[in-house]
Amino acid sequence: MQRSLAIAGTACLSGIIIGKKWAREENINPLNSTFARELMPLTVQQSIYKLGDPNQSATPPLIFRDNYVLSFDERMRNPKWVYEKITKNDLEGDADRKDCDFKSDKEVHRYFRAENLDYRGSGFDRGHLAAAANHKKSPNVLQETFLLSNICPQHPGLNRKLWKSLENYTRSLAKHYDCVHVFSGPLYLPKEKEGKLVVEYQLIGTNHVAVPTHFFKILLLESEKEFQIKSYVMPNEETTSEDDLKQSMVPLEAIERASGLVFMDRLQNQKYGKPITKINSEIVKKAGLFR
Amino acid sequence: MQRSLAIAGTACLSGIIIGKKWAREENINPLNSTFARELMPLTVQQSIYKLGDPNQSATPPLIFRDNYVLSFDERMRNPKWVYEKITKNDLEGDADRKDCDFKSDKEVHRYFRAENLDYRGSGFDRGHLAAAANHKKSPNVLQETFLLSNICPQHPGLNRKLWKSLENYTRSLAKHYDCVHVFSGPLYLPKEKEGKLVVEYQLIGTNHVAVPTHFFKILLLESEKEFQIKSYVMPNEETTSEDDLKQSMVPLEAIERASGLVFMDRLQNQKYGKPITKINSEIVKKAGLFR
Repeated sequence: MQRSLAIAGTACLSGIIIGKKWAREENINPLNSTFARELMPLTVQQSIYKLGDPNQSATPPLIFRDNYVLSFDERMRNPKWVYEKITKNDLEGDADRKDCDFKSDKEVHRYFRAENLDYRGSGFDRGHLAAAANHKKSPNVLQETFLLSNICPQHPGLNRKLWKSLENYTRSLAKHYDCVHVFSGPLYLPKEKEGKLVVEYQLIGTNHVAVPTHFFKILLLESEKEFQIKSYVMPNEETTSEDDLKQSMVPLEAIERASGLVFMDRLQNQKYGKPITKINSEIVKKAGLFR
Repeated sequence: MQRSLAIAGTACLSGIIIGKKWAREENINPLNSTFARELMPLTVQQSIYKLGDPNQSATPPLIFRDNYVLSFDERMRNPKWVYEKITKNDLEGDADRKDCDFKSDKEVHRYFRAENLDYRGSGFDRGHLAAAANHKKSPNVLQETFLLSNICPQHPGLNRKLWKSLENYTRSLAKHYDCVHVFSGPLYLPKEKEGKLVVEYQLIGTNHVAVPTHFFKILLLESEKEFQIKSYVMPNEETTSEDDLKQSMVPLEAIERASGLVFMDRLQNQKYGKPITKINSEIVKKAGLFR
């Protein structure tokens, strides 16, 4: 019992479900006939697709909402990253978050889907990654930010303070630039423990939602002729809203190495014809590729 | 210093590299002209592809070798899963592992690539997932199993004992079935700690290779008319080779929920016209879909 619990939570204990009648199709699928198998055995590459590629079997690699794009991390039951693009126009609606409810996301496979009950009594807020206040154009667009696939367990002392300051700051930038591109996501960072580097994080609820140790936000500020990059990491713990946001800046590469992701790599492929003039508030003296 | 180290290891400290001259292409790319942008602003969905989808920017989602297929977990610097298909024929070669060297895998992005140095002095073996002894057909095929993307830090007391027994058992099955399909991978399982469920694992080396807490292996035994499934989880710690393999059996769904993966989901889509007659040695009384 202890062991099964440790493996995958109470929900797995029912084991494997045997359902509907198995339909044989040997006669219609030449790949299944003994003759065809002998004639041309499947390669290992063909076989993985025939059985089902595990990467494609759980949740779509990208989930497209009206106003944001999300990639889900099934093992952590959290988003991997969320991408928004904010313009002045997005901030002008008057949809009200009081009309919104947090909801499970049916696009996420039922094995890996977070539910409201997972958060109850956990001490953690349901923290938005695509921020609610960035998407007030319409009630539907706002409601989409309340899907739990866009939510992580966030310490109230981060969600309501320093993270909120960063969200407010992002919106203030959107008023001064043509567009602000935003990537947000959780991190699970190590700490030193008896001379070793150790990652440690809690799981909450029967669905085992991971509590990130940190969060990142990457801003790409776009104006007609240039780009600026700002990238932040914040601990998932008590903060104050007065903390200087600048102190939370880290090199983009540090976020990439920690998250296992590479961001905006097409900027270096010259898909955008604009120089990057500032990175984390420092002027880029020799305009060039940013990695 | 302490903080940067905790974020992403020593290798990130050099920060962001500013290289080659940025080439403007405003004149040749209509999407970049002010006119075109005003005429048809990009949707958030178009924008993510223009900037670069982070899921596509690091490592290919599938890496195809001659004799196995691998999916890499960039954040953990370990494989997510490895798929092999073993037939009698695969076991008959005489390639010698003494001629093989462990090598970094250039197909993995340099940020996330494990190196031999990461393992040195760690106390962990470089444990194969696609087992070396399954791929003796030719020196090249064998050498491919020594790429570090197919390797995880494994406790010597698992690698050389119970895990080895499972590999030997898998090969013995391959002699009695048409084919054995094998999925292997690492797990990072929680344990109870002060009333909370907590995941804890070590990182080794400057590339921060995660040390899994457990490993799984899923066997699909194929014969002309039927399938059998066997699925195992083993702790990454001291074991004995005499431990009964049956005691390591767990429901496939437990592995799926813990790994964030869904395996062989096309079996339920009737791509194979064969019933599953046994799951973890228990006879399936009512032949049907297995989930």
